[in-house]
Amino acid sequence: MTAEILSVGTELLLGNIVNTNAAFLSQELAGLGISVFRQTTVGDNHKRLFTALENAFANADVVIISGGLGPTLDDITKEVAAEYFGRKLVLHEKSLERIKIRFATWGRELPTNTSRNAIIPENSIVLPNDNGSAPGVVVEDNGKTLILLPGPPHEMIPMFTNYVSPFLQQKSERVFVSRTLKIIGIGESQVESMLMDLITAQTNPTIAPYAKVGDCHVRVTASAECEEDAEKLIAPIAAEIYRRLDPHIYSDNGLTLPEIVVSLLETQNHTLAVAESCTGGLIMSELVSVAGCSSVFLEGLCTYSNEAKTARLGVPANLIQNHGAVSAEVAAAMAERAAEISGATVGVSTTGIAGPGGGTAVKPVGLLYVGLCINGQTETAMFNITGNRNEVRLRAANLAMDVLRQRLTR
Amino acid sequence: MTAEILSVGTELLLGNIVNTNAAFLSQELAGLGISVFRQTTVGDNHKRLFTALENAFANADVVIISGGLGPTLDDITKEVAAEYFGRKLVLHEKSLERIKIRFATWGRELPTNTSRNAIIPENSIVLPNDNGSAPGVVVEDNGKTLILLPGPPHEMIPMFTNYVSPFLQQKSERVFVSRTLKIIGIGESQVESMLMDLITAQTNPTIAPYAKVGDCHVRVTASAECEEDAEKLIAPIAAEIYRRLDPHIYSDNGLTLPEIVVSLLETQNHTLAVAESCTGGLIMSELVSVAGCSSVFLEGLCTYSNEAKTARLGVPANLIQNHGAVSAEVAAAMAERAAEISGATVGVSTTGIAGPGGGTAVKPVGLLYVGLCINGQTETAMFNITGNRNEVRLRAANLAMDVLRQRLTR
Repeated sequence: MTAEILSVGTELLLGNIVNTNAAFLSQELAGLGISVFRQTTVGDNHKRLFTALENAFANADVVIISGGLGPTLDDITKEVAAEYFGRKLVLHEKSLERIKIRFATWGRELPTNTSRNAIIPENSIVLPNDNGSAPGVVVEDNGKTLILLPGPPHEMIPMFTNYVSPFLQQKSERVFVSRTLKIIGIGESQVESMLMDLITAQTNPTIAPYAKVGDCHVRVTASAECEEDAEKLIAPIAAEIYRRLDPHIYSDNGLTLPEIVVSLLETQNHTLAVAESCTGGLIMSELVSVAGCSSVFLEGLCTYSNEAKTARLGVPANLIQNHGAVSAEVAAAMAERAAEISGATVGVSTTGIAGPGGGTAVKPVGLLYVGLCINGQTETAMFNITGNRNEVRLRAANLAMDVLRQRLTR
Repeated sequence: MTAEILSVGTELLLGNIVNTNAAFLSQELAGLGISVFRQTTVGDNHKRLFTALENAFANADVVIISGGLGPTLDDITKEVAAEYFGRKLVLHEKSLERIKIRFATWGRELPTNTSRNAIIPENSIVLPNDNGSAPGVVVEDNGKTLILLPGPPHEMIPMFTNYVSPFLQQKSERVFVSRTLKIIGIGESQVESMLMDLITAQTNPTIAPYAKVGDCHVRVTASAECEEDAEKLIAPIAAEIYRRLDPHIYSDNGLTLPEIVVSLLETQNHTLAVAESCTGGLIMSELVSVAGCSSVFLEGLCTYSNEAKTARLGVPANLIQNHGAVSAEVAAAMAERAAEISGATVGVSTTGIAGPGGGTAVKPVGLLYVGLCINGQTETAMFNITGNRNEVRLRAANLAMDVLRQRLTR
């Protein structure tokens, strides 16, 4: 099966917003074994959207349009779809009812143009919108499948996940199952070369590496007649990847690194204090992004200046003088002192050179020391990180969290 | 003049990366008065790229391709361009020389396929790549202009800004000048409604609002015969927008909010300490993202628990008990104590409810108190923020920085 993604919205053509929908849909379709050969973006213009739709169906079995489903006159997607398939637009009473209930729940008045939201091409399948007003629509005709989704990602993504993905799965005689292994501490090109023989030899499951800033994902996708069989195909490949990349794999169940760290601390009854220098608050900020982190995270200190390292944490001034602020010794002392003064069982610290200035031949930009103190036992790790100032800081924060994760899973 | 943007790369069609290039180029072209009617993305496939190029020139005077300029066999953009215009590919000696010097400077060996980087369609204009190996290319023929740019944003963006933008300006008989006013503390829809009469009445300059998470940009673009005349057209409109939105406008010269805050502190010889609760390290992290912030930023304390507020900052426990951790009184004490213990002239604090849990009828999710203490003088501000946990935190961090900015510019 082949698909084309058509994004609709003048705000995309003006560069007002970045088209994250196309990337999300492409990744999901790849996971379903559906090939995407083109993504097209057009404005809220009837004629251009019609032409784009014709062009899309010239090559693809499935066309997914995101955007242009709203109630204003700008929102023309359903009109264009109805014209393309030669169908009338009709009112979908159930959707109107849903919208009325939504507004009543909020205690808000129904806008006058609301009924436009509930108009659909006749004889189409309606996809409920659990996070907004405009329902999604599937129109099928003569082997062509057109799927209309809302533009806002917080409406589109759950609609795709809950309704479109199972619908497309069911159209296929085969089931597609994916597992994503998230990897930290080795770069994408190294991951690729370590898995190259698997990647080139495998057709089912397929193995696809995805580069991110700060980590790398490898998605293993299998197709089979049922989910159980697909899982059976994935298992030995995932095990082989684990064998080669462990302990760099931090997640295979969708969780993020801070979520995993918070959950490990929670399970092991630890509390955490963080002392950051070069990362400048990024680690605590990542941890606090996890709802409920307050059960384990006590406090964070960003001791950016040497004075703060001494006054706030009690790192001895002569330790800094003898070894430099960027040293294993100072990283260790920072982690120990953070745990001690906060009463946390775990202290984590970073000290390094984020750049662009401040590097020397001996201590270049990208040098990072991580300190870790658990129940009074201290260890340190050293890294050399590449990238600009903010890439270095992001990678440093992730590596520090990973030092803690690896220690807690040892 | 009309343009189409063509993005090339199988990694885009797999959803491996988000197409930020298309948004950047669209925004830049809009600022040059060039209309973009379509964006298309295709993979590293000769036939499909050729068809996309034909389709693009059917509607547009200028086609910009980003991606596919590298040295590997996958990189087919220059071959397709040469075929489309019926030109030979020739070696551009100067570009090869540049690449050799780049590699020599790093002390790295020249890869064997490097010369493919320096191959260009004959009789084309070469755009130097100041941040990578592959040069950009402009091919002109019979009123059609094709511009080939590298895919990596850190190579593409400076190449567009330094070489393509002036080139396109010069093709136009008119000069386009833009000024972007960055706004914080009021939402996009409110900005739009406050400027609606200006937006609809104006054709030169045009006024375009761009929504971001945490702030909002308004771009004013004028066209004239020379830059001076364009500036004269912008001045009264910018002044009118300032009149309506001041003091919410924090930047009109491209600087970010943390850059402005660091620069204001520096100019006024202030030093800063930050005490964060709900923002959990985001403010310090934003400030530390500014290279050279160490001249003003002394330290940051993320006192997430009540115990840390008392033990680390010395906020009286009974103050927290009487008013709650999320209160103006605690925000004020946090800011005062942060300044006092660090010896900084300025203390900034946040305390609030980031959600999703923890909200009550009296103190709902999104409630934020900001404390500010300058030279011993304390003030507080209260905000009600909407969004999910991380949007609330990002907006809260920006609002806190803005409280400081507004105070320093008063």
